[in-house]
Amino acid sequence: MRKLYKIAVVGATGLIGRKLIKVLEKRNFPAKEITLFASEKSVGRCIYALGKHRPVKTLNENAFNGLDIVFFCAGSDISKTYTPIAIKCGAFVIDNSSAFRKIDEIPLIIPEINGNILKNYNGKIISNPNCSTAISVLPLKTLDDNFGIKRIIYTSFQAVSGSGNKGIRDLKRCLNGNKPQFYPVNICKNCLPQIGNFSIFGYTEEELKMVDETRKILGKQIPISATCVRVPIENCHGVSISVELEKPYLDEEIRGIFATTKGITISDIPLCENANNKDEVLVGRIKRSFAFENGVDFYCVGDNTLKGATLNAVQIAEKLISFNKI
Amino acid sequence: MRKLYKIAVVGATGLIGRKLIKVLEKRNFPAKEITLFASEKSVGRCIYALGKHRPVKTLNENAFNGLDIVFFCAGSDISKTYTPIAIKCGAFVIDNSSAFRKIDEIPLIIPEINGNILKNYNGKIISNPNCSTAISVLPLKTLDDNFGIKRIIYTSFQAVSGSGNKGIRDLKRCLNGNKPQFYPVNICKNCLPQIGNFSIFGYTEEELKMVDETRKILGKQIPISATCVRVPIENCHGVSISVELEKPYLDEEIRGIFATTKGITISDIPLCENANNKDEVLVGRIKRSFAFENGVDFYCVGDNTLKGATLNAVQIAEKLISFNKI
Repeated sequence: MRKLYKIAVVGATGLIGRKLIKVLEKRNFPAKEITLFASEKSVGRCIYALGKHRPVKTLNENAFNGLDIVFFCAGSDISKTYTPIAIKCGAFVIDNSSAFRKIDEIPLIIPEINGNILKNYNGKIISNPNCSTAISVLPLKTLDDNFGIKRIIYTSFQAVSGSGNKGIRDLKRCLNGNKPQFYPVNICKNCLPQIGNFSIFGYTEEELKMVDETRKILGKQIPISATCVRVPIENCHGVSISVELEKPYLDEEIRGIFATTKGITISDIPLCENANNKDEVLVGRIKRSFAFENGVDFYCVGDNTLKGATLNAVQIAEKLISFNKI
Repeated sequence: MRKLYKIAVVGATGLIGRKLIKVLEKRNFPAKEITLFASEKSVGRCIYALGKHRPVKTLNENAFNGLDIVFFCAGSDISKTYTPIAIKCGAFVIDNSSAFRKIDEIPLIIPEINGNILKNYNGKIISNPNCSTAISVLPLKTLDDNFGIKRIIYTSFQAVSGSGNKGIRDLKRCLNGNKPQFYPVNICKNCLPQIGNFSIFGYTEEELKMVDETRKILGKQIPISATCVRVPIENCHGVSISVELEKPYLDEEIRGIFATTKGITISDIPLCENANNKDEVLVGRIKRSFAFENGVDFYCVGDNTLKGATLNAVQIAEKLISFNKI
């Protein structure tokens, strides 16, 4: 008989929290019990999860008693405040926020790529990567394994669902001819080349996440540049990627290795509508980059709410279980 | 007293033809007479141009008699068929199509960059660059002059107006919940990473145009890669550009040289709405590229129907006049 776990979702009423519940259901996650947490303003609401409607609870010092796994799907601040409490209660924390991603001792996991790190990991926190990074690194890891990656140039086309329900509502608002309330501009009339606040070196937070997290997941300090742009699309991020490789390759090789990489589906012209609600990342527009002697350009599209967030988080939990860590 | 010219617009009923007429009016172009040509199906229509409504005429063997300048704003096929006739009649042809752009003997002109080529040019055809190229090369030329460009990686965010009225109508159709008739996909639900037909090496025609035309205008055979993507925006193209430079630079230098480049307006976060109907290209998001030792990333947005097409064509005509070629 398989073991069942007591789990919780923090931020259960948000776009990612709700999607995570659906992923747990779809994958028939071995849950014995699920607790749903959200902010004060959601108390009194019920959410359907794993077979029945369940009341939303608020977080407090004793909220995590007896839990095995807590999925954090709220902001960084909530993760920073409540993760220490959750792990003190003995729970594993799988954190969707950026709170711990840059800490060397905390693994940043894409199960297909570096899931084996968890085998010998004795900590309790595991970070889930940024959405655009998660979508991009599956094909990149394969390239790195086969030809060695020398440098990467990222340009992203990010859907408004990356901003959660606020982003989706704002796109609809603008499409209906009303003024934006969340984005600083009318997002149906502009591509917005700023995601997150500005940070150092003229990069935005989102761009630095792509740079830092790609390096951490690939495990090498290679030169990477990123430009992140919000586009008027409801769901699914696209990323245009140019890569310089260490070794030469034959034209058909790349397509072949992408086609056999777990989590990737080859699609000659990858589209948001085709990636929507799909677990796989679509990879296409594969061409020799004229910019480098051994270069390849490709374009990938993935559901940022799935592989870019919830699916990957649940896959991390499944990996922990497979290693008998829980 | 300034000299006045007999001019014509071929494709006068199209998006670019109509915009070109507006640019001529706005710039008070020294026209004595303007003839408007379009296809059979537009005959009988009148278009307002330079002070009055004028009938649309069809092209024929004698259509260009006595004309000084003909602006071709129809497709490549029309340009290829009628340009020889127009130049036999003694007219200068300024061609918006891609028909002659790759021919070595025919100049491809951005007046601010290589307009002086026209001084000693004895031919009659001048090509106007592709829209995304025209928007990108102003900042690139400045970088090349100051630091030497070693390589370029382009990723474009192209508005539907780049497909003419057909593209704009299709976006509106999809926004109203109807099926697309022009694009192969619902363009309000997808970024479409294919512009133009597929050509050699897995590149689309649009991508090869950016590569070839940039090399021709900058006058150097450098490594360039391009990925062109249609986005659900009505007007104004964005281009995310990563450049490797020959020489090192200081952080504030780039901004300074862009700010003093004719045709460029610095805008920290360049937006389509701000570039719409503006002659200048907005350049922003300037940052050191982590991908190269001496690299710079920036993002530029321009009105593809103006600097990307009509404005540049009219500026070419003005340059010919300034050199007393007409």
